[in-house]
Formats: sequence, C-alpha cells, structure tokens
Amino acid sequence: MMERISFSPLSRLAICGGTHGNEMTGVYLVRALQEQKVNQKGSVSITTVLSNPPAVDACRRYKDTDLNRCFTDDLLSAPITDSTPYELRRAHELNAQLGPKGSREAVDLLCDIHNTTANMGICLIIYSFDWIALHIYKYIQSKATSVPVRAIYLDTPSSEAYSLESVGKHGIAIEVGPQPNGVLRADIFNMVKEAVDLVIEWLQKFNSGSAFEGGEVEAYTTVRPVDYPRDPTTNDITAAIHPELQDNDFKLLRSGDPVFQSFSGETVKHEGEDLYPMFVNECAYYEKKIAFHLTKKITLTLPTISMKNDMDS
Amino acid sequence: MMERISFSPLSRLAICGGTHGNEMTGVYLVRALQEQKVNQKGSVSITTVLSNPPAVDACRRYKDTDLNRCFTDDLLSAPITDSTPYELRRAHELNAQLGPKGSREAVDLLCDIHNTTANMGICLIIYSFDWIALHIYKYIQSKATSVPVRAIYLDTPSSEAYSLESVGKHGIAIEVGPQPNGVLRADIFNMVKEAVDLVIEWLQKFNSGSAFEGGEVEAYTTVRPVDYPRDPTTNDITAAIHPELQDNDFKLLRSGDPVFQSFSGETVKHEGEDLYPMFVNECAYYEKKIAFHLTKKITLTLPTISMKNDMDS
Repeated sequence: MMERISFSPLSRLAICGGTHGNEMTGVYLVRALQEQKVNQKGSVSITTVLSNPPAVDACRRYKDTDLNRCFTDDLLSAPITDSTPYELRRAHELNAQLGPKGSREAVDLLCDIHNTTANMGICLIIYSFDWIALHIYKYIQSKATSVPVRAIYLDTPSSEAYSLESVGKHGIAIEVGPQPNGVLRADIFNMVKEAVDLVIEWLQKFNSGSAFEGGEVEAYTTVRPVDYPRDPTTNDITAAIHPELQDNDFKLLRSGDPVFQSFSGETVKHEGEDLYPMFVNECAYYEKKIAFHLTKKITLTLPTISMKNDMDS
Repeated sequence: MMERISFSPLSRLAICGGTHGNEMTGVYLVRALQEQKVNQKGSVSITTVLSNPPAVDACRRYKDTDLNRCFTDDLLSAPITDSTPYELRRAHELNAQLGPKGSREAVDLLCDIHNTTANMGICLIIYSFDWIALHIYKYIQSKATSVPVRAIYLDTPSSEAYSLESVGKHGIAIEVGPQPNGVLRADIFNMVKEAVDLVIEWLQKFNSGSAFEGGEVEAYTTVRPVDYPRDPTTNDITAAIHPELQDNDFKLLRSGDPVFQSFSGETVKHEGEDLYPMFVNECAYYEKKIAFHLTKKITLTLPTISMKNDMDS
C-alpha cells in the first residue's frame, strides 16, 4: 500500500532573487513583486528578498565570494570577524531573516531563482527526500506546458547543503535558461513567473486540505563534472563545447558522441557509460573548471501527502 | 560608366580581440592564432593583438572605461597623466603599435572582433566610403552561407570615430551573436574564423592584382537608439524586450508591433515609421540606456576596385 505522510500547514513562503547578482530573472521578479506589494496570497504569506544587493548593483555574480556556497551549518556558525567576506556576512543576515536553518522558526518553503546560460528550460534543484519540494515539482511539471520542467536531485545532508534554499524547512532552487548573465529575457521571465504562481497555488491547495497523490517522478542525479581540455603549461582551455553538444542539455550522451571541438579543429568524444549532460557551457562554471555536468536519470516514488489535521497531532 | 578606383597593396593586416574583455570569440581566436604562430599568409602579414588583457583576465567589458570609445583624434592626442584611466593609456599604446591613426604607418586593415548577446548573425561595422571594407563585406556575404552577413554603415568622420578599427587605414569591426558575455560558443567561433579567413583570402586576391567588380550592397544606417521604459522616480527599467521583438534583429518593425512587455504584463508598441531594429537586448547597452537601435536599410553602389600598379602611380 502507498505510504501517506502528513505535514503541518505551509504558510510562510520566501521568494529570493539576485543571490547571483547578474542573473536577472530573479532580480526583476523580486522587484516586481515588491513594487506590487505582494505579501499575502490566501493562506500563504510571502517574503521577497533581493539576496545580494551589492552584486546586483555591480551586475556581477558576487562581490567577494559565491553567496550560494555559504549556507552550510559550519559556515553559518563560524564567527564573523573584520576579514569575513561580504557574502558570508550576508549569509548570516539571510539565515537570521529566513531561518535559522534547521529550526522551527525557518520559513516553510524557500524558493531561490537562478539563471543559467545553458539550455536547461526550467530545472528545479531539490534535496533528497524533501517530499514537499518533490510534490511541487510534480505539480509544476504537470501544469507548465510551454517548456520542459526537470528536477536535479541532490543527495546531500542538510547540514552540508550550501545553497540559500537549504535555509527553509523546504527548499527549491529554480534554475532557468538559456539566458545570458546581465540580460533579462521576457520569455524566461514569464516562465519563472508561471512557476512561482504554481508554487503559490500548490501551497494554497495544500493548506486548504487537498491531498496530493503519490506516484513516480523522474529526476537527474549528478555523476561527475567534466572540465575543458586545457594546455598543460598555461592551463588555458584549448577547446570549446562541440556544436553537437551545445544547447543539448539532458540529451543522452553516448560513447563516441562529440563533446569538445579544439581550436585547431579536432573533436574530443565522450567515453564510457551513457549519461545525461547538464549545465553545458554555463558561464559561471568556467572559473570552477566545469564544462558540463554528467548525470543519471532516476525514478523516485513519492508518497501521498496531505496536511496534518488535529487528529494527526 | 562605372567608376573604377585603384589602391596601394594591402599587405599589413591586424586582427584584434578582447577589446571588450568578456567577448570571448575574439579572445580565443587571437590566442589560437598566436598559439599557431600565424603571422604571414602569402602576401599578407598578420599582427594579432589581445587589446585589453586586464579586462580579459577579469572577464569584464573593461577595467576603468570602455576601450572601444577611446580612439577619437581628440582622445588619442590628449596628454597622459597619473589620473588617466587604464583604457585610455592602452588606446595610446595600441595607436602607437597599429597606427598612428590617419598616418602612412598605420596597418592597411584592422579587423576587431566583437560579440553581442543580440541575435545579429555576422554584422560588419564599416565607416562611410571605405570601399575596401565594403568590398570585403560584399565578398564575405557572397561566400559565407551558414549565417546572415550584414553591414552597419556609420557616417562618422574618421577623426570622430571612436572604435579601435578606425586606427587602421581601413577598418572593420566584426560583431557576432548571439553569444552570452563570458561564454564561448563553437558555432560562433567557427563563423568568425571563416569570416577572418575570407578577409585574408580577399586581401591575397587583391594583392595578386584581381579587380573586384562594383555593384550594389545593402547596409543598415542608424536612426536612433530606444531606451527601456523606466520608473520616473527610481529610474529602474519597468519592462523587458517583448518576446515578439526578442531575437528578431533586422526584422522590419512596423507601427503597432510590440516592443516591450512591462513587468505587470502590459505591451508597449512601436510608433512612427517602419524601421529595422538591431542590438536588441544587448547586455552591455543596459548601462548605456539602450534597449535596441533603430536603423534604415540603404543601398550603396560600390565602384570597381583594383590594386594600383606602376603605371597608375
């Protein structure tokens, strides 16, 4: 028999943008929600946060260090000193405002909006066994028809999760592309607005007592990152993503398929098991020495969920 | 009878990239040419220059100011002081190496490689009545079949031309997109490599005595820039490029066609005469308060040209 799990009402939603200051969809969606004074929709109270204002002002990913790597338990409990980078200070502020992470006071759901230069459509990043986040993914996938909706499933303990969305009791990063850094595309903006509206709609249904039937969903789980070919002396990259791989995130890569084209014209091929690429030619990953990630597709079986009522407690 | 003009041999070519440090095609093409020690092809000697190395290292458009606005006669003759921005110093260096602008010592042709986030294909920026540059455009357009090749025709006197390519006796900026800043796409790299190879091929044919027949070519000439709708108090933009205009550079914009979509969902329409948009949603133009440029299409009649031989001089 299908498992059934009940949860307390999910009344407090945080929507964050500008965690990376040059990813414009979240920046402008948060500003628009603030402009329109959206702070309550039915049973759902909404907090909107521009996560990294100095990076937004400079239109850069970050000022001193990547804010979206600062939310592990260790970093959030480290003392702040005069030499603490700006983003780590800001992480402590955000944790105080939206968390504290792992506590009863944390927001019920934290949605953090990101962009990628990769052709990934809408991709929800979800931590393992967050049934709420996985059910919201299932709901968005069934309702959003204009673009593929996929999930990346991270099997990381909450204490080691480094992203902002890990501060909420439940968390989803909404990763959408392709969009260049520093550019705002209306089509991407409209997709993300629709996804956020569907999150709110789901929470309202949940809070009104609807049960959400279990079932199977597909997700991608990371296997390994792949770096660009590099010159052994200068460490400069010596090849670009091959045109046949470019824009083909989540298209199965088989042994022998081209992955890189060197500047002198040679093709480098994929070797080994068949895997799904993602974050192909993501701008911010050049400095992280990642040309793309390889993933496996997995199937997850979700339990039926509903709100805890008085008789459950 | 068709006019016929003869020119001295064109033996010295400069290929520049990284004038804007986050436009990666030129950066990697110049590095590849330097790696392969390409400095002579038949009758053509080739100088390759990475124009703005500190901006390339930081993967930013510029360090202190836009290098590609520094090459007017006034700025190139201004004294250098301790407070001179880096790029203006660098402009003086480049002018010494590749010019001096307007002198007999200047390189015969300067090609400067740029990228745009707009969907512009290959676009050559050419100054008025540079018959050599216009003939090279005609040649590339007739040979390159994988992508549209267009020309932007700027009617600016050389003394006021502010771009690097104005330092050569003849100059072409090769503007190619769409490509996000900080990202290198192999398809765009291959297009630009083909265009540069065709420039070299044309110069070799010219130097070997081939005449190039005159004829008509189309080009676009700027009418006016259009800014984003803005909030009158905060000055923040209140709309994005409309999805029907996005990616439709050089598609005729008629009165009543949508141009912006506001964050609250309203459509702003084009008014007035029919014009061609370009640089639609170019990343670097947000700070210049330009959402797109409007242009007119014009037809230019080129004279037949050939190399000056001994009897001409």
